[in-house]
Amino acid sequence: MSAADILDLGKIPSKVNPELQSERNCSSLTPYISEITAIVDGGRNNTEKRRQIERILFKDPLFRDCAIDSVYKPRDEMYARGVERSVRLFALKEEYNWTDEEFGIAVNVINHQYSLGLHNVMFIPALERLSTEQQKAKWLHLARNYQIIGTYAQTELGHGTNLQGLETIATYDATTEEFILNTPTVTSIKWWPGALGKSVNYAIILATLIIDGKKHGMHPFLTPLRSTKDHKPLPGVKVGDIGPKLTFNIVDNGYLILNNVRIPRENMLMKNAQVSREGHFTSRGPSKANYSAMILVRVTIVNWCSVILSNSSTITVRYSAVRRQSTLDSSSEKESKILDYQTQQYKVFPSLATAYALFFVSKTLKNRYLKTYAEIIKGNFKNLPEIHCQSAGMKAMSGEMTAELLEISRQACGGHGYLAASALGDAVASAKALVTVEGENTVLYLQVARYLMKRFAAAVSGERLSGSTEYLCMDPMKYTCPINSPEDCMNVSLLCQVYRFRAYRMISKAARMLQRDIEGGKKQHKAMNDNLVQLVRAARAHLLYCMVVDYKEGMNQLQISVPVSKALNNLLVFFTVFNIVKNAGDFLETESIGLPQMEWLKETEVKMLAEIRPDAVSLVDAFDIHDNTHGSVLGCYDGNVYERMLKSTQNEPLNQCDVHYSFHQHLKPFLQRNNTSKL
Amino acid sequence: MSAADILDLGKIPSKVNPELQSERNCSSLTPYISEITAIVDGGRNNTEKRRQIERILFKDPLFRDCAIDSVYKPRDEMYARGVERSVRLFALKEEYNWTDEEFGIAVNVINHQYSLGLHNVMFIPALERLSTEQQKAKWLHLARNYQIIGTYAQTELGHGTNLQGLETIATYDATTEEFILNTPTVTSIKWWPGALGKSVNYAIILATLIIDGKKHGMHPFLTPLRSTKDHKPLPGVKVGDIGPKLTFNIVDNGYLILNNVRIPRENMLMKNAQVSREGHFTSRGPSKANYSAMILVRVTIVNWCSVILSNSSTITVRYSAVRRQSTLDSSSEKESKILDYQTQQYKVFPSLATAYALFFVSKTLKNRYLKTYAEIIKGNFKNLPEIHCQSAGMKAMSGEMTAELLEISRQACGGHGYLAASALGDAVASAKALVTVEGENTVLYLQVARYLMKRFAAAVSGERLSGSTEYLCMDPMKYTCPINSPEDCMNVSLLCQVYRFRAYRMISKAARMLQRDIEGGKKQHKAMNDNLVQLVRAARAHLLYCMVVDYKEGMNQLQISVPVSKALNNLLVFFTVFNIVKNAGDFLETESIGLPQMEWLKETEVKMLAEIRPDAVSLVDAFDIHDNTHGSVLGCYDGNVYERMLKSTQNEPLNQCDVHYSFHQHLKPFLQRNNTSKL
Repeated sequence: MSAADILDLGKIPSKVNPELQSERNCSSLTPYISEITAIVDGGRNNTEKRRQIERILFKDPLFRDCAIDSVYKPRDEMYARGVERSVRLFALKEEYNWTDEEFGIAVNVINHQYSLGLHNVMFIPALERLSTEQQKAKWLHLARNYQIIGTYAQTELGHGTNLQGLETIATYDATTEEFILNTPTVTSIKWWPGALGKSVNYAIILATLIIDGKKHGMHPFLTPLRSTKDHKPLPGVKVGDIGPKLTFNIVDNGYLILNNVRIPRENMLMKNAQVSREGHFTSRGPSKANYSAMILVRVTIVNWCSVILSNSSTITVRYSAVRRQSTLDSSSEKESKILDYQTQQYKVFPSLATAYALFFVSKTLKNRYLKTYAEIIKGNFKNLPEIHCQSAGMKAMSGEMTAELLEISRQACGGHGYLAASALGDAVASAKALVTVEGENTVLYLQVARYLMKRFAAAVSGERLSGSTEYLCMDPMKYTCPINSPEDCMNVSLLCQVYRFRAYRMISKAARMLQRDIEGGKKQHKAMNDNLVQLVRAARAHLLYCMVVDYKEGMNQLQISVPVSKALNNLLVFFTVFNIVKNAGDFLETESIGLPQMEWLKETEVKMLAEIRPDAVSLVDAFDIHDNTHGSVLGCYDGNVYERMLKSTQNEPLNQCDVHYSFHQHLKPFLQRNNTSKL
Repeated sequence: MSAADILDLGKIPSKVNPELQSERNCSSLTPYISEITAIVDGGRNNTEKRRQIERILFKDPLFRDCAIDSVYKPRDEMYARGVERSVRLFALKEEYNWTDEEFGIAVNVINHQYSLGLHNVMFIPALERLSTEQQKAKWLHLARNYQIIGTYAQTELGHGTNLQGLETIATYDATTEEFILNTPTVTSIKWWPGALGKSVNYAIILATLIIDGKKHGMHPFLTPLRSTKDHKPLPGVKVGDIGPKLTFNIVDNGYLILNNVRIPRENMLMKNAQVSREGHFTSRGPSKANYSAMILVRVTIVNWCSVILSNSSTITVRYSAVRRQSTLDSSSEKESKILDYQTQQYKVFPSLATAYALFFVSKTLKNRYLKTYAEIIKGNFKNLPEIHCQSAGMKAMSGEMTAELLEISRQACGGHGYLAASALGDAVASAKALVTVEGENTVLYLQVARYLMKRFAAAVSGERLSGSTEYLCMDPMKYTCPINSPEDCMNVSLLCQVYRFRAYRMISKAARMLQRDIEGGKKQHKAMNDNLVQLVRAARAHLLYCMVVDYKEGMNQLQISVPVSKALNNLLVFFTVFNIVKNAGDFLETESIGLPQMEWLKETEVKMLAEIRPDAVSLVDAFDIHDNTHGSVLGCYDGNVYERMLKSTQNEPLNQCDVHYSFHQHLKPFLQRNNTSKL
């Protein structure tokens, strides 16, 4: 196909690129792909359901280029498009009577490229959670029918992690039975809430309640911000967009300044605390239901990480199977596929393996959450700290891994991975957000570490532990490294013991360091701060152990055919070995393994690269991600990479005319200023 | 200052934020800042020269917001602005008679935010290097006077690293004494050259020369692409922009399709090879001067990495000294500065230390390059392989470090580091480009590794080595770890020995693995590929050793006051220890250190964080980077972070009116579709 066919006629070859076809022909896993797809979707029915949603969405041009078109648009148009998509999506939800789960699938299919997500994801659930029955009756149907559109406003310009630090205030005025809301300082301005800037007309605002000059803690206030008629900001409300971010610019994250904004007493959401007409305050304390919502979001993020890595692996593996560069064998005429270079495999396969790992990990975590949640609603809070620690930690660990691995695999696509049309840069930026949102990672690691310190102290004092920290009761003197041959490095059960011992030693070391500092006269908080780095290391070690166990156990529960089992097991072994080698210092330092083991593990690691290689394309095909969902010119099913790259240039605004106006305005006068000669 | 003052009047407090002022008041390094600034600038005169250039540039509104304004503009306007800036910059260069070096300072001052950089950086130097005297006489003054504007076009859609793979052809037609240029396939389309898309009217095109059906290798052809009158593409030329990238969108990186484009015989740049009128080909082989240009670019990148990290450290350290979040000591009323958390220091100080490290490393490398270059022009090529290896390796290592550390320090700024207005995202994206441009990092590491394998074989065969690989002659049996106490961990000379031994062992291991595989019957190329991962590890170990040595020696040459020496030495020790801990597995595995040493090193590492803490703000103030250069709301000298964030929202296009047009178009009809009630 010629360049002119592509540029002038917009053609793309209809055939699959032979480079990719040969991969599919040669992989013994190819006939079993649909089996893996069903696992990832959670059953063949779900696969069919997802594909049906894809068909519905992608017959609409509004959704067809969703993953990529925004990079060519100015912010203004991008946002307008996002609003249009939101409205269309809500209408489809009604038309097809999608469940919340199906709606979630639709959102994944369009790669979250719409503006008003917060309404369904935060506003409605918060209304449900925080309102009295009477309030629900008044507000919920309005929200569900999109007669009001809302968000949840907590974070402020100067305050994020530490809720106690929030400065927005709601002062009760008993004479009018109203609350008066104010953001009295620059640092108190609400900052970040999604859809706050231009879209919503209501927000649930977290503010400190003040009655008669006395503070009564933080409470939620349902506050109208814009007229439901003309959408103009209401008196006392200043609201706007906070400006562009690394990505998600389709969403209008906003700021909000409140200047004596009055709302009726009934607009305080009073499920957990009440203010009477006379200004009498009563409270049941914060609801445990609030915790469980936060935990669920974090559990969901672990799954989201898996989805992000599945997307990006699909792109990088396919591209690596198409791209040829230099030769491995100098006697060869043809350049080599970059996927055949060991170094390329070492950049691309960790993402692939981690995509599968986090799929199984998130599934196990979700089940554990549901079990604990069922206990909680029966009033049994025993396992709340455990699931809190698990969800916080897994969110942090998987967010960190995802951001890091994704960037490595983006780099593995060289210059072309630097193009917006590769969709990899945007994926990296999305992954990076996961490091910060819903609990900043370091803060979460330290929450896990504090939990571990408590559990360790309990173990030392003879308490019997259960759950993920059960192993802290172990007798470290009884440990001997279970890896006694290179073959043992393929045995994930043995490797789990190694992970466990490393975690134990890292945790006991942190506890020892803390104790030493306190016994040496440091105050508790000073001792804590002087050991934060080691505490984070201990938390990571614990979480990586949990992750490997959950991955292994998630896999064990599958009923699968032999070829699928073999291929997935290769990834499991690789993931397990890779993360030991990556953290080699810790494993050696804690004497969980010795030098010969480390050498065997490194050999196993590169051996597994070679094992995975023939099935790599099948393993990403199995994710069955629609081309429109990943939106990458490098990652399409047909592998026509170069043709799609060339075609993508048609979308670039600079290419809409041959000569850009800046030539006439700036360049021409300059070039010709001395031009006496004729060229 | 109230929100209204900021938003409605555009005010920012005139006083320095007390949080930052107290840092400056308390650091004993404050009185010595100008001494460090002079070191970084290369003398007090240079500081004055830079500041003068800053004054010239920043009195012009066109340059004042250069670092940040483009994030608010659509691509089209961004590019136009970049062209306008280019033209203004070239005019200033003439007006003030700036040397190339001064022009380089100006470019750094405006953070490279202009479009036509390739003309000076690539086009003119290539013309100088590749042309005959006659050609120089004809073309150079046209280029220097900007009567023609050009770029250098080498990379193709399907070909990057491997020059031999390029497909563009130039066929000689003796009847008309012309070359006929063609990009015959989609993969042969030129792709990536900066300023190619819309700006330039000339390009030096790398193409395979064909005479009478016979190929004669790759040569440069000076080719007019657009009319110098109306800038329209010439017949047979299709040229355009390749679309948005992760950053640098002010530059129109372009594609180029050539369809029987004829140029006169004289337009082949014939310094190194000639084609006579009759089509007779003669060649002197590739010029060594070509190599030295490539080497110089890589040397420059190492310095650029230091500049990037200086910028970002300025931002992250100042922000961390202003931001307060949670409390270290729960008895304290006030929230703590995040810079006081050990974990925050562990994210921010590695960037700071590496900024200084790479400053010294690049200085030493530059001097070594100049020395070798002086030899080369005298016809002595002995040290060419060594400087080639050093520059390739240091470029790879510093690019990798910079991209990684910068992202960590961006994350250390939490959500606000995710805003475009923080300027950190853009800095990360720029750093990422350095991993790929001018030699893809893995390719470069493997070049270093191959060089090391050769040198190691030479050492084994008894040859005496010099330069960076001298140590390969060591007797490993004689090594004992020189670290015998915690205090020894502060002694960088001793630590250098540790680094050296680790490098030796990693290199000898790679050599052993290769030999084993070849003796086991694998072909050379297969053995090579099966050990690429270890070869890269060996190269990194060598380069990190070289880096630490160069850093130490660069520091030793300074004549500085005691407080400055102490502060800079803290950074040197931290950098050295940090990179051992980061690569702990290697150091333990090679038995360069043992377990007690590792424990001491980790203690030294966190001890150094506490040592650096009081001087952190002074150490970034010393970079003396103009607020307009880094362009970050988080990093300004006055520390008025929140006020600047709020003010920055005025630039956001979405905020130009209260109600966005998408409300009327999309949202209103939807919200009101069921609206029978009145809200």
